[in-house]
Amino acid sequence: MSAIPMERPMLGDDEATALTVLAARVRELAEATVLTGADAAEAAAVADEIAALTARLTAERRGAPPFVTPGERRMDRQIANPVTGPLNPFAPPISLEVTSDGVVRGEFTLGAVYEGPPSYVHGGVSAMVLDQALGMAAAATGTPGMTATLETRYRRPTPLGVPLQVEAKASRVEGRKVHASGTISAPDGRVTVEATGMFIMPQRFVTSEY
Amino acid sequence: MSAIPMERPMLGDDEATALTVLAARVRELAEATVLTGADAAEAAAVADEIAALTARLTAERRGAPPFVTPGERRMDRQIANPVTGPLNPFAPPISLEVTSDGVVRGEFTLGAVYEGPPSYVHGGVSAMVLDQALGMAAAATGTPGMTATLETRYRRPTPLGVPLQVEAKASRVEGRKVHASGTISAPDGRVTVEATGMFIMPQRFVTSEY
Repeated sequence: MSAIPMERPMLGDDEATALTVLAARVRELAEATVLTGADAAEAAAVADEIAALTARLTAERRGAPPFVTPGERRMDRQIANPVTGPLNPFAPPISLEVTSDGVVRGEFTLGAVYEGPPSYVHGGVSAMVLDQALGMAAAATGTPGMTATLETRYRRPTPLGVPLQVEAKASRVEGRKVHASGTISAPDGRVTVEATGMFIMPQRFVTSEY
Repeated sequence: MSAIPMERPMLGDDEATALTVLAARVRELAEATVLTGADAAEAAAVADEIAALTARLTAERRGAPPFVTPGERRMDRQIANPVTGPLNPFAPPISLEVTSDGVVRGEFTLGAVYEGPPSYVHGGVSAMVLDQALGMAAAATGTPGMTATLETRYRRPTPLGVPLQVEAKASRVEGRKVHASGTISAPDGRVTVEATGMFIMPQRFVTSEY
Protein backbone atom coordinates (compact mmCIF):
# COMPACT_ATOMS: atom_id res chain seq x y z
CA MET A 1 0.00 0.00 0.00
CA SER A 2 2.94 2.33 0.63
CA ALA A 3 4.10 4.42 -2.34
CA ILE A 4 7.79 3.89 -1.47
CA PRO A 5 9.30 0.55 -2.59
CA MET A 6 10.96 -1.87 -0.16
CA GLU A 7 13.96 -2.64 -2.40
CA ARG A 8 17.03 -0.48 -1.86
CA PRO A 9 19.99 0.69 -3.93
CA MET A 10 23.30 0.16 -2.09
CA LEU A 11 25.72 3.09 -1.91
CA GLY A 12 29.46 2.77 -2.47
CA ASP A 13 31.85 4.48 -0.02
CA ASP A 14 32.60 7.47 -2.29
CA GLU A 15 28.93 8.14 -2.95
CA ALA A 16 28.04 7.77 0.74
CA THR A 17 30.77 10.24 1.72
CA ALA A 18 29.72 12.83 -0.89
CA LEU A 19 26.01 12.50 -0.06
CA THR A 20 26.76 12.83 3.66
CA VAL A 21 28.50 16.17 2.98
CA LEU A 22 25.57 17.23 0.78
CA ALA A 23 23.08 16.38 3.54
CA ALA A 24 25.13 18.35 6.08
CA ARG A 25 24.97 21.43 3.83
CA VAL A 26 21.17 21.04 3.39
CA ARG A 27 20.79 20.72 7.19
CA GLU A 28 22.67 24.01 7.65
CA LEU A 29 20.50 25.61 4.97
CA ALA A 30 17.33 24.48 6.81
CA GLU A 31 18.53 26.08 10.05
CA ALA A 32 19.51 29.24 8.15
CA THR A 33 15.98 29.32 6.70
CA VAL A 34 14.22 29.46 10.09
CA LEU A 35 16.70 32.03 11.43
CA THR A 36 17.31 34.27 8.43
CA GLY A 37 16.63 37.99 8.61
CA ALA A 38 16.80 38.28 4.80
CA ASP A 39 14.15 40.52 3.26
CA ALA A 40 11.41 39.16 1.00
CA ALA A 41 13.31 39.88 -2.25
CA GLU A 42 16.48 38.13 -1.09
CA ALA A 43 14.49 35.15 0.27
CA ALA A 44 12.73 34.80 -3.10
CA ALA A 45 16.02 35.01 -5.00
CA VAL A 46 17.61 32.30 -2.83
CA ALA A 47 14.46 30.15 -3.19
CA ASP A 48 14.84 30.23 -6.99
CA GLU A 49 18.47 29.14 -6.77
CA ILE A 50 17.51 26.27 -4.47
CA ALA A 51 14.90 25.08 -6.97
CA ALA A 52 17.63 24.91 -9.64
CA LEU A 53 19.84 22.78 -7.34
CA THR A 54 16.91 20.45 -6.58
CA ALA A 55 16.45 19.99 -10.33
CA ARG A 56 20.12 19.01 -10.63
CA LEU A 57 19.77 16.41 -7.86
CA THR A 58 16.56 14.97 -9.28
CA ALA A 59 18.02 14.54 -12.78
CA GLU A 60 18.97 11.08 -11.48
CA ARG A 61 16.37 10.09 -8.88
CA ARG A 62 15.99 6.84 -6.91
CA GLY A 63 12.60 5.42 -5.91
CA ALA A 64 13.66 5.07 -2.26
CA PRO A 65 16.47 6.15 0.09
CA PRO A 66 19.65 4.09 -0.40
CA PHE A 67 21.27 1.81 2.18
CA VAL A 68 24.92 1.13 2.89
CA THR A 69 26.47 -2.22 3.70
CA PRO A 70 26.16 -2.42 7.50
CA GLY A 71 28.97 -3.26 9.89
CA GLU A 72 28.08 -5.29 12.98
CA ARG A 73 24.58 -3.84 13.37
CA ARG A 74 21.95 -4.37 10.69
CA MET A 75 20.25 -1.06 11.61
CA ASP A 76 23.36 0.87 10.56
CA ARG A 77 22.56 0.17 6.91
CA GLN A 78 19.82 2.82 7.11
CA ILE A 79 21.99 5.83 6.30
CA ALA A 80 18.92 8.05 5.68
CA ASN A 81 17.20 7.29 9.03
CA PRO A 82 15.38 10.45 10.27
CA VAL A 83 17.09 10.35 13.69
CA THR A 84 20.54 8.83 13.12
CA GLY A 85 21.08 9.06 9.36
CA PRO A 86 23.95 11.28 8.18
CA LEU A 87 22.39 11.20 4.68
CA ASN A 88 19.09 12.68 5.93
CA PRO A 89 19.00 16.50 6.28
CA PHE A 90 15.95 16.07 8.54
CA ALA A 91 18.02 14.08 11.10
CA PRO A 92 20.11 16.00 13.69
CA PRO A 93 21.83 13.36 13.06
CA ILE A 94 22.46 11.55 16.35
CA SER A 95 25.32 9.06 16.51
CA LEU A 96 24.11 6.23 18.79
CA GLU A 97 26.67 3.77 20.13
CA VAL A 98 25.85 0.38 21.62
CA THR A 99 28.11 -0.82 24.45
CA SER A 100 29.03 -4.49 24.93
CA ASP A 101 26.37 -4.77 27.66
CA GLY A 102 23.66 -3.51 25.30
CA VAL A 103 23.36 0.11 26.47
CA VAL A 104 22.61 2.60 23.66
CA ARG A 105 24.17 6.04 24.19
CA GLY A 106 24.49 9.27 22.26
CA GLU A 107 25.22 12.96 22.77
CA PHE A 108 23.42 15.48 20.58
CA THR A 109 22.44 19.12 20.32
CA LEU A 110 19.18 20.28 18.78
CA GLY A 111 18.87 23.62 17.00
CA ALA A 112 16.06 25.97 16.09
CA VAL A 113 14.24 23.67 13.62
CA TYR A 114 13.35 21.33 16.51
CA GLU A 115 11.71 23.97 18.71
CA GLY A 116 8.37 23.40 20.45
CA PRO A 117 7.74 25.76 23.39
CA PRO A 118 9.94 28.86 22.93
CA SER A 119 13.61 27.93 23.60
CA TYR A 120 12.79 24.24 24.27
CA VAL A 121 12.77 21.01 22.26
CA HIS A 122 9.37 20.00 20.79
CA GLY A 123 7.93 17.17 22.93
CA GLY A 124 7.35 15.10 19.81
CA VAL A 125 10.99 15.44 18.78
CA SER A 126 12.09 14.05 22.16
CA ALA A 127 9.67 11.14 21.64
CA MET A 128 11.16 10.52 18.19
CA VAL A 129 14.72 10.41 19.56
CA LEU A 130 13.69 8.03 22.36
CA ASP A 131 11.78 5.76 19.95
CA GLN A 132 14.96 5.37 17.91
CA ALA A 133 17.20 4.76 20.95
CA LEU A 134 14.83 2.25 22.56
CA GLY A 135 14.38 0.50 19.21
CA MET A 136 18.15 0.15 18.86
CA ALA A 137 18.40 -1.19 22.42
CA ALA A 138 15.71 -3.75 21.55
CA ALA A 139 17.58 -4.72 18.37
CA ALA A 140 20.81 -5.12 20.38
CA THR A 141 19.20 -8.13 22.12
CA GLY A 142 19.18 -9.91 18.75
CA THR A 143 15.43 -9.41 18.31
CA PRO A 144 15.00 -6.28 16.13
CA GLY A 145 11.40 -5.13 15.96
CA MET A 146 8.95 -2.39 15.14
CA THR A 147 7.56 -0.13 17.87
CA ALA A 148 4.39 -1.58 19.44
CA THR A 149 4.03 0.89 22.33
CA LEU A 150 5.98 3.95 23.48
CA GLU A 151 5.27 5.87 26.68
CA THR A 152 7.09 9.15 27.24
CA ARG A 153 7.02 11.14 30.48
CA TYR A 154 8.22 14.74 30.43
CA ARG A 155 9.78 15.66 33.75
CA ARG A 156 11.07 19.12 32.80
CA PRO A 157 11.61 21.12 29.59
CA THR A 158 14.50 19.98 27.34
CA PRO A 159 16.66 22.93 26.25
CA LEU A 160 17.71 23.67 22.67
CA GLY A 161 21.27 24.52 21.74
CA VAL A 162 23.08 22.62 24.52
CA PRO A 163 24.56 19.08 24.59
CA LEU A 164 21.94 16.47 25.57
CA GLN A 165 22.47 12.80 26.43
CA VAL A 166 20.22 9.95 25.37
CA GLU A 167 20.54 6.49 26.88
CA ALA A 168 18.46 3.31 26.48
CA LYS A 169 18.55 -0.36 27.43
CA ALA A 170 16.39 -3.44 26.92
CA SER A 171 14.91 -4.82 30.14
CA ARG A 172 13.43 -8.13 28.98
CA VAL A 173 12.75 -10.32 25.94
CA GLU A 174 9.60 -12.47 25.63
CA GLY A 175 9.69 -14.38 22.35
CA ARG A 176 9.28 -11.77 19.59
CA LYS A 177 8.63 -8.97 22.12
CA VAL A 178 11.34 -6.80 23.69
CA HIS A 179 10.79 -4.23 26.46
CA ALA A 180 13.17 -1.28 26.70
CA SER A 181 13.49 2.01 28.57
CA GLY A 182 15.55 5.15 28.27
CA THR A 183 16.06 8.82 29.08
CA ILE A 184 17.14 12.18 27.71
CA SER A 185 19.27 14.24 30.12
CA ALA A 186 20.27 17.91 30.19
CA PRO A 187 23.91 19.07 30.64
CA ASP A 188 23.40 19.24 34.44
CA GLY A 189 22.68 15.49 34.40
CA ARG A 190 19.00 15.84 35.27
CA VAL A 191 16.59 13.66 33.30
CA THR A 192 14.21 15.77 31.20
CA VAL A 193 12.26 12.97 29.45
CA GLU A 194 11.97 9.25 30.21
CA ALA A 195 10.41 6.54 28.07
CA THR A 196 9.46 2.88 28.13
CA GLY A 197 8.54 0.91 25.05
CA MET A 198 7.74 -2.49 23.67
CA PHE A 199 9.03 -3.65 20.29
CA ILE A 200 7.79 -6.64 18.28
CA MET A 201 9.72 -8.51 15.61
CA PRO A 202 7.33 -8.86 12.64
CA GLN A 203 6.39 -12.45 11.78
CA ARG A 204 7.81 -12.03 8.28
CA PHE A 205 11.28 -11.19 9.73
CA VAL A 206 11.09 -14.45 11.66
CA THR A 207 9.87 -16.58 8.78
CA SER A 208 12.43 -15.13 6.38
CA GLU A 209 15.22 -16.32 8.67
CA TYR A 210 14.00 -19.87 9.25
CA MET B 1 19.81 27.41 30.41
CA SER B 2 18.72 27.05 26.78
CA ALA B 3 20.93 28.72 24.17
CA ILE B 4 17.90 29.98 22.20
CA PRO B 5 16.26 33.17 23.53
CA MET B 6 12.54 33.36 24.45
CA GLU B 7 11.94 36.75 22.77
CA ARG B 8 10.74 36.62 19.17
CA PRO B 9 10.90 38.89 16.13
CA MET B 10 7.47 39.28 14.51
CA LEU B 11 7.23 38.76 10.74
CA GLY B 12 5.24 41.00 8.42
CA ASP B 13 2.96 39.39 5.80
CA ASP B 14 5.38 39.88 2.89
CA GLU B 15 8.30 38.37 4.78
CA ALA B 16 6.17 35.45 6.00
CA THR B 17 5.03 34.71 2.45
CA ALA B 18 8.55 34.86 0.99
CA LEU B 19 10.04 32.74 3.79
CA THR B 20 7.26 30.17 3.41
CA VAL B 21 8.18 29.77 -0.27
CA LEU B 22 11.87 29.53 0.69
CA ALA B 23 11.11 26.80 3.26
CA ALA B 24 9.08 24.85 0.67
CA ARG B 25 12.07 24.89 -1.70
CA VAL B 26 14.44 23.71 1.08
CA ARG B 27 11.98 20.90 1.95
CA GLU B 28 12.03 19.74 -1.69
CA LEU B 29 15.83 19.93 -1.68
CA ALA B 30 15.96 17.73 1.45
CA GLU B 31 13.81 15.05 -0.21
CA ALA B 32 15.91 15.30 -3.39
CA THR B 33 19.01 14.74 -1.22
CA VAL B 34 17.86 11.40 0.19
CA LEU B 35 16.63 10.22 -3.23
CA THR B 36 19.29 11.57 -5.59
CA GLY B 37 21.24 9.26 -7.84
CA ALA B 38 23.83 12.00 -8.56
CA ASP B 39 27.43 10.79 -8.60
CA ALA B 40 29.96 11.93 -5.98
CA ALA B 41 31.32 14.81 -8.09
CA GLU B 42 27.88 16.27 -8.82
CA ALA B 43 26.81 15.89 -5.18
CA ALA B 44 29.95 17.75 -4.06
CA ALA B 45 29.37 20.54 -6.58
CA VAL B 46 25.76 21.02 -5.45
CA ALA B 47 26.90 20.95 -1.80
CA ASP B 48 29.26 23.88 -2.49
CA GLU B 49 26.48 25.90 -4.08
CA ILE B 50 24.21 25.22 -1.10
CA ALA B 51 26.91 26.51 1.27
CA ALA B 52 26.99 29.77 -0.69
CA LEU B 53 23.20 30.15 -0.37
CA THR B 54 23.37 29.44 3.38
CA ALA B 55 25.94 32.23 3.65
CA ARG B 56 23.53 34.61 1.90
CA LEU B 57 20.71 33.72 4.31
CA THR B 58 22.92 34.05 7.39
CA ALA B 59 24.22 37.51 6.39
CA GLU B 60 21.21 38.72 8.42
CA ARG B 61 20.58 36.15 11.13
CA ARG B 62 18.03 36.15 13.98
CA GLY B 63 18.73 34.61 17.40
CA ALA B 64 15.51 32.58 17.31
CA PRO B 65 12.75 31.57 14.86
CA PRO B 66 10.26 34.39 14.20
CA PHE B 67 6.56 34.39 15.06
CA VAL B 68 3.61 35.84 13.18
CA THR B 69 0.65 37.65 14.71
CA PRO B 70 -1.80 34.81 15.43
CA GLY B 71 -5.43 34.73 14.41
CA GLU B 72 -7.89 33.09 16.80
CA ARG B 73 -5.44 30.51 18.12
CA ARG B 74 -2.32 31.57 19.98
CA MET B 75 -0.44 28.45 18.79
CA ASP B 76 -0.72 29.64 15.17
CA ARG B 77 1.89 32.32 15.86
CA GLN B 78 4.58 29.61 15.77
CA ILE B 79 5.17 29.63 12.02
CA ALA B 80 8.41 27.59 12.37
CA ASN B 81 6.85 24.74 14.41
CA PRO B 82 8.51 21.41 13.43
CA VAL B 83 5.16 19.71 12.70
CA THR B 84 2.82 22.44 11.46
CA GLY B 85 5.12 25.33 10.57
CA PRO B 86 5.19 26.35 6.89
CA LEU B 87 8.42 28.27 7.64
CA ASN B 88 10.21 25.13 8.86
CA PRO B 89 11.75 22.89 6.16
CA PHE B 90 11.85 20.08 8.75
CA ALA B 91 8.01 20.14 9.07
CA PRO B 92 5.92 18.19 6.51
CA PRO B 93 4.12 20.75 7.25
CA ILE B 94 0.73 19.54 8.48
CA SER B 95 -2.18 21.97 8.43
CA LEU B 96 -4.26 21.18 11.55
CA GLU B 97 -7.77 22.59 11.78
CA VAL B 98 -9.81 22.82 14.97
CA THR B 99 -13.58 22.34 14.62
CA SER B 100 -16.09 24.26 16.75
CA ASP B 101 -16.48 21.20 19.01
CA GLY B 102 -12.73 21.08 19.67
CA VAL B 103 -11.70 18.27 17.30
CA VAL B 104 -8.26 18.74 15.70
CA ARG B 105 -8.02 17.32 12.17
CA GLY B 106 -5.46 17.26 9.38
CA GLU B 107 -4.56 15.36 6.23
CA PHE B 108 -0.91 14.88 5.36
CA THR B 109 1.48 12.79 3.30
CA LEU B 110 4.97 11.87 4.49
CA GLY B 111 7.85 11.35 2.07
CA ALA B 112 11.17 9.56 2.12
CA VAL B 113 12.87 11.74 4.78
CA TYR B 114 10.42 10.40 7.40
CA GLU B 115 11.11 6.70 6.77
CA GLY B 116 11.67 4.20 9.58
CA PRO B 117 11.14 0.56 8.55
CA PRO B 118 11.53 0.33 4.75
CA SER B 119 8.49 1.96 3.06
CA TYR B 120 6.86 2.95 6.38
CA VAL B 121 6.77 6.06 8.59
CA HIS B 122 9.32 6.12 11.46
CA GLY B 123 7.47 5.34 14.71
CA GLY B 124 8.97 8.43 16.32
CA VAL B 125 7.65 10.65 13.53
CA SER B 126 4.12 9.35 14.15
CA ALA B 127 4.59 10.12 17.86
CA MET B 128 5.74 13.64 16.97
CA VAL B 129 2.67 14.28 14.81
CA LEU B 130 0.34 12.95 17.53
CA ASP B 131 2.07 15.02 20.24
CA GLN B 132 1.36 18.16 18.21
CA ALA B 133 -2.26 17.22 17.45
CA LEU B 134 -3.07 16.24 21.05
CA GLY B 135 -1.35 19.40 22.31
CA MET B 136 -3.50 21.52 20.03
CA ALA B 137 -6.64 19.68 21.18
CA ALA B 138 -5.61 20.41 24.77
CA ALA B 139 -5.03 24.08 23.92
CA ALA B 140 -8.47 24.25 22.27
CA THR B 141 -10.03 23.78 25.73
CA GLY B 142 -8.56 27.15 26.72
CA THR B 143 -5.83 25.53 28.82
CA PRO B 144 -2.72 25.36 26.59
CA GLY B 145 0.04 23.28 28.14
CA MET B 146 3.27 21.43 27.69
CA THR B 147 3.29 17.63 27.20
CA ALA B 148 3.49 15.79 30.54
CA THR B 149 2.88 12.25 29.24
CA LEU B 150 2.34 10.74 25.81
CA GLU B 151 1.46 7.09 25.18
CA THR B 152 1.48 5.84 21.61
CA ARG B 153 0.26 2.40 20.51
CA TYR B 154 1.20 1.16 17.04
CA ARG B 155 -1.56 -1.06 15.64
CA ARG B 156 -0.11 -1.53 12.16
CA PRO B 157 2.61 0.09 9.99
CA THR B 158 1.89 3.61 8.67
CA PRO B 159 2.65 3.88 4.93
CA LEU B 160 4.76 6.62 3.35
CA GLY B 161 3.65 8.48 0.24
CA VAL B 162 -0.12 8.21 0.72
CA PRO B 163 -2.63 10.61 2.34
CA LEU B 164 -2.93 10.04 6.10
CA GLN B 165 -5.46 11.49 8.55
CA VAL B 166 -4.69 12.70 12.05
CA GLU B 167 -7.46 13.47 14.53
CA ALA B 168 -7.35 14.44 18.22
CA LYS B 169 -9.70 15.63 20.96
CA ALA B 170 -9.45 16.59 24.62
CA SER B 171 -11.35 14.27 26.95
CA ARG B 172 -11.18 16.14 30.25
CA VAL B 173 -9.75 19.18 32.04
CA GLU B 174 -8.66 19.07 35.70
CA GLY B 175 -7.39 22.49 36.71
CA ARG B 176 -4.12 23.03 34.81
CA LYS B 177 -4.16 19.46 33.42
CA VAL B 178 -5.83 18.42 30.16
CA HIS B 179 -6.19 14.82 28.93
CA ALA B 180 -6.43 14.22 25.17
CA SER B 181 -6.40 11.34 22.72
CA GLY B 182 -6.03 10.89 18.99
CA THR B 183 -5.23 8.67 16.02
CA ILE B 184 -3.43 8.47 12.69
CA SER B 185 -5.38 6.61 9.98
CA ALA B 186 -4.38 5.16 6.61
CA PRO B 187 -6.32 5.88 3.36
CA ASP B 188 -8.47 2.76 3.95
CA GLY B 189 -9.72 4.35 7.19
CA ARG B 190 -7.94 1.89 9.48
CA VAL B 191 -6.17 3.36 12.51
CA THR B 192 -2.41 2.77 12.35
CA VAL B 193 -1.35 4.60 15.54
CA GLU B 194 -3.35 5.79 18.55
CA ALA B 195 -2.21 8.03 21.39
CA THR B 196 -3.32 9.40 24.72
CA GLY B 197 -1.61 12.27 26.48
CA MET B 198 -1.72 14.65 29.39
CA PHE B 199 -0.76 18.30 29.04
CA ILE B 200 -0.05 20.73 31.89
CA MET B 201 -0.26 24.50 31.71
CA PRO B 202 2.98 25.80 33.27
CA GLN B 203 2.49 27.85 36.45
CA ARG B 204 4.16 30.86 34.83
CA PHE B 205 1.49 30.93 32.07
CA VAL B 206 -1.13 31.03 34.82
CA THR B 207 0.53 33.74 36.87
CA SER B 208 1.23 35.90 33.81
CA GLU B 209 -2.48 36.01 33.06
CA TYR B 210 -3.79 36.93 36.51
